[in-house]
Amino acid sequence: MSYSEIRKLFRSPQAYVGKTITVPGWVKTVRDSKTFGFIELNDGTFFRNLQVVFEEGRLENFKEVAKLTVGSAIEVEGELLETPNAKQPFELKASRIAIENTCPADYQLQKKRHSFEFLRTISHLRPRTNTFSAVFRVRSLAAFAIHKFFQERGFVYVHTPLITGSDAEGAGQMFKVTTFDINNPPRHENGKIDYTQDFFQKETSLTVSGQLTGEAYALAFKNIYTFGPTFRAENSNTARHAAEFWMIEPEIAFSDLKDDMMLAEDMLKYIINYVMENAPEEMEFFNSFVDKTLLERLNNVVNSDFAHITYTQAIELLGKNRENFEYPVEWGSDLQTEHERYLTEQVFKKPVFVTDYPKEIKAFYMRINDDNKTVAAMDLLVPGVGEIIGGSQREERLEVLESKMEAMGLKKDDYWWYLELRKYGGTKHAGFGLGFERAIMYLTGMSNIRDVIPFPRTTGSCEF
Amino acid sequence: MSYSEIRKLFRSPQAYVGKTITVPGWVKTVRDSKTFGFIELNDGTFFRNLQVVFEEGRLENFKEVAKLTVGSAIEVEGELLETPNAKQPFELKASRIAIENTCPADYQLQKKRHSFEFLRTISHLRPRTNTFSAVFRVRSLAAFAIHKFFQERGFVYVHTPLITGSDAEGAGQMFKVTTFDINNPPRHENGKIDYTQDFFQKETSLTVSGQLTGEAYALAFKNIYTFGPTFRAENSNTARHAAEFWMIEPEIAFSDLKDDMMLAEDMLKYIINYVMENAPEEMEFFNSFVDKTLLERLNNVVNSDFAHITYTQAIELLGKNRENFEYPVEWGSDLQTEHERYLTEQVFKKPVFVTDYPKEIKAFYMRINDDNKTVAAMDLLVPGVGEIIGGSQREERLEVLESKMEAMGLKKDDYWWYLELRKYGGTKHAGFGLGFERAIMYLTGMSNIRDVIPFPRTTGSCEF
Repeated sequence: MSYSEIRKLFRSPQAYVGKTITVPGWVKTVRDSKTFGFIELNDGTFFRNLQVVFEEGRLENFKEVAKLTVGSAIEVEGELLETPNAKQPFELKASRIAIENTCPADYQLQKKRHSFEFLRTISHLRPRTNTFSAVFRVRSLAAFAIHKFFQERGFVYVHTPLITGSDAEGAGQMFKVTTFDINNPPRHENGKIDYTQDFFQKETSLTVSGQLTGEAYALAFKNIYTFGPTFRAENSNTARHAAEFWMIEPEIAFSDLKDDMMLAEDMLKYIINYVMENAPEEMEFFNSFVDKTLLERLNNVVNSDFAHITYTQAIELLGKNRENFEYPVEWGSDLQTEHERYLTEQVFKKPVFVTDYPKEIKAFYMRINDDNKTVAAMDLLVPGVGEIIGGSQREERLEVLESKMEAMGLKKDDYWWYLELRKYGGTKHAGFGLGFERAIMYLTGMSNIRDVIPFPRTTGSCEF
Repeated sequence: MSYSEIRKLFRSPQAYVGKTITVPGWVKTVRDSKTFGFIELNDGTFFRNLQVVFEEGRLENFKEVAKLTVGSAIEVEGELLETPNAKQPFELKASRIAIENTCPADYQLQKKRHSFEFLRTISHLRPRTNTFSAVFRVRSLAAFAIHKFFQERGFVYVHTPLITGSDAEGAGQMFKVTTFDINNPPRHENGKIDYTQDFFQKETSLTVSGQLTGEAYALAFKNIYTFGPTFRAENSNTARHAAEFWMIEPEIAFSDLKDDMMLAEDMLKYIINYVMENAPEEMEFFNSFVDKTLLERLNNVVNSDFAHITYTQAIELLGKNRENFEYPVEWGSDLQTEHERYLTEQVFKKPVFVTDYPKEIKAFYMRINDDNKTVAAMDLLVPGVGEIIGGSQREERLEVLESKMEAMGLKKDDYWWYLELRKYGGTKHAGFGLGFERAIMYLTGMSNIRDVIPFPRTTGSCEF
């Protein structure tokens, strides 16, 4: 059977108008009077529905069709007619409607509003609603935009490992991975667990970042990016934390912090442009029903040259507004979301890179500046969110890196291969991380991370 | 600093010839005589090296440059000159060479052959070799080709979950995920482990497939695909098994097994064409040094209409050659690799879909055919490998699925939401799985899965 897709009807109507086509899909609504009726049909390929008109004289099964329930799966054959005076551009005049599945009346997605909280309990059905079809189509388009952006620039996509034998990645608490019967793991004679009998013959966990292995590949391919899942076992039951989320981590060799910021700015603008061009209906929907400032905000990002200030300058600026913050403002403390949002929303009114943070509050691999007090780090702050990207130039000087690791109590043996990247052909390089879900929240205006992940995993919740 | 990339020099030489440019990169070889010398420079952006020529009179640091070691990182400024009579199309005549990192003599990647086994022990450095730079560039391009193929067709990319609370996915042994101290997990009074105190308040594992959740999204978006990591805790210490690998799992609604096979054939051809067009140097390299039949084989796939036979026909064909097989040939047994390769290599000499397998040897979710003995399954067999894709039409009839699950001893409660996909708007749908690493082995001729994964995780091995 050769089916037509509703997306194609809307994108290229002239190829279909006047022709007889067959469209399968799900019933969104049915309105009928005695001798004719209308079905709003959606096939999942497009945000908008196709209007189907059906008449008693033309359909053998008119009575069954008139009684169709919301959610039923049908197949409609008919002629596509222009409707110049109606709100929809065309309608499908049915000559045949085959009913594949009659949806029972206890189907939960009847035509009424549901809370996002309720819809999370039916994560297998929620992508059929307007809001979530829009969210997850945008998520798909944004993911592709990211691949397209990097591939067009010759970056190599690297699948960094998920299961890791090192706990050397620094940030965050990790999930353990094992094949042991946890009730009764094999033990040494002294009672300690004998990990040599586990699947990998050692303790393993789920990764929190692909950066370190990504660096190895940047020092081979110059420009690489990762795009894969990462995990945090933190008991943060907030609207912004998930235990399993996707990260994009580009890494560029022969490049410094300036190159890194240029890349981040170009990438963010590219994603926004791609999604606005390829999902205009969805973005209008978010702007109307989720966040009325969304399009204005995104257009502002696309059309701005991002601002740049150092952390030290940021502290000065924040100090002038000290009394309006909950958290203290002082050189040496990390910026809080209220500080970040003040900078980007009130002071600059556009995205701003904050650079050169105190070395004490940043990771060991960040390159120490000549002042010996700050590191070549950058955070990108955007209106409405605060930090959306964090990156740095990496410490490429072997002896500087080693002494920093020693000062921080890190074992050189755990990082033997990471250190070798400096010893053998080491060169300046930089990179950043973008949390994909945060980016989707930013693009859609959705405020809970559970509503931008198909089947979210959060503290105490691992359903489906 | 505005750098030029070697990829761009080779792809658009006319834009650079005669101009002064700056190229950073790593030294592959140095040859020098008293007053001049040559450096083969690679910056990671292209398979081939840039030849740099340097002369005593033109360089301040001629002596240091002449002593450069393999692997050193440098930056070369000079004029790009055409060399019509040489084997390389142009060379860079250096006016300045800045040395960023002098690589020590114990660097393992000197100009000599290394075994793949040895190179696995330095997975952080091996992408710098010809073979592995080719493998991992092809891997990146193939990944992008897959996204491009599906996105051009309007498929929605779905990130299905990695951590799962169900052991309902069927295939394969699973890794457990926990935040417990395995040495001393919390227990109920009766001594049983109290999983309500674990991170997700239940037992969780790493997924073996995104298919079931993918189906939920196909029944919302019609056409979807997944592309993400999957895990198997099987003690299979072979050249074809990894504990962590990536899968592509498209799922298409309002579609049957024929549609599924057409999609698989189109996809495979698309990936091969894309890689051959975008990595011709790498593919030539594989054809010369890894597998001399590679390009012939891939061209044959691209230019063939794939064959189709039923499992029952396959058994008949194999029966005629029974005496040459190690494993028995009989209706009801699964095909072995020797059988598969015989069919695709000897009988058809091109890719072949085998369909309609006995229901007893296939998964519970596959649609039962009208004969009530076989299911609407398909395996795609390709020369040189055997099975590369497996798929099926899914059982969409609720009562048939339920009785099949009951017969197989599966609990309906574990699959409540999967069954609801049939109850509410269920329709015919189909899908398949492509193991990404198997595809890369097929595309490159590499014979060990450990050599197509950046940092492989296999039985007893989780390094880096």
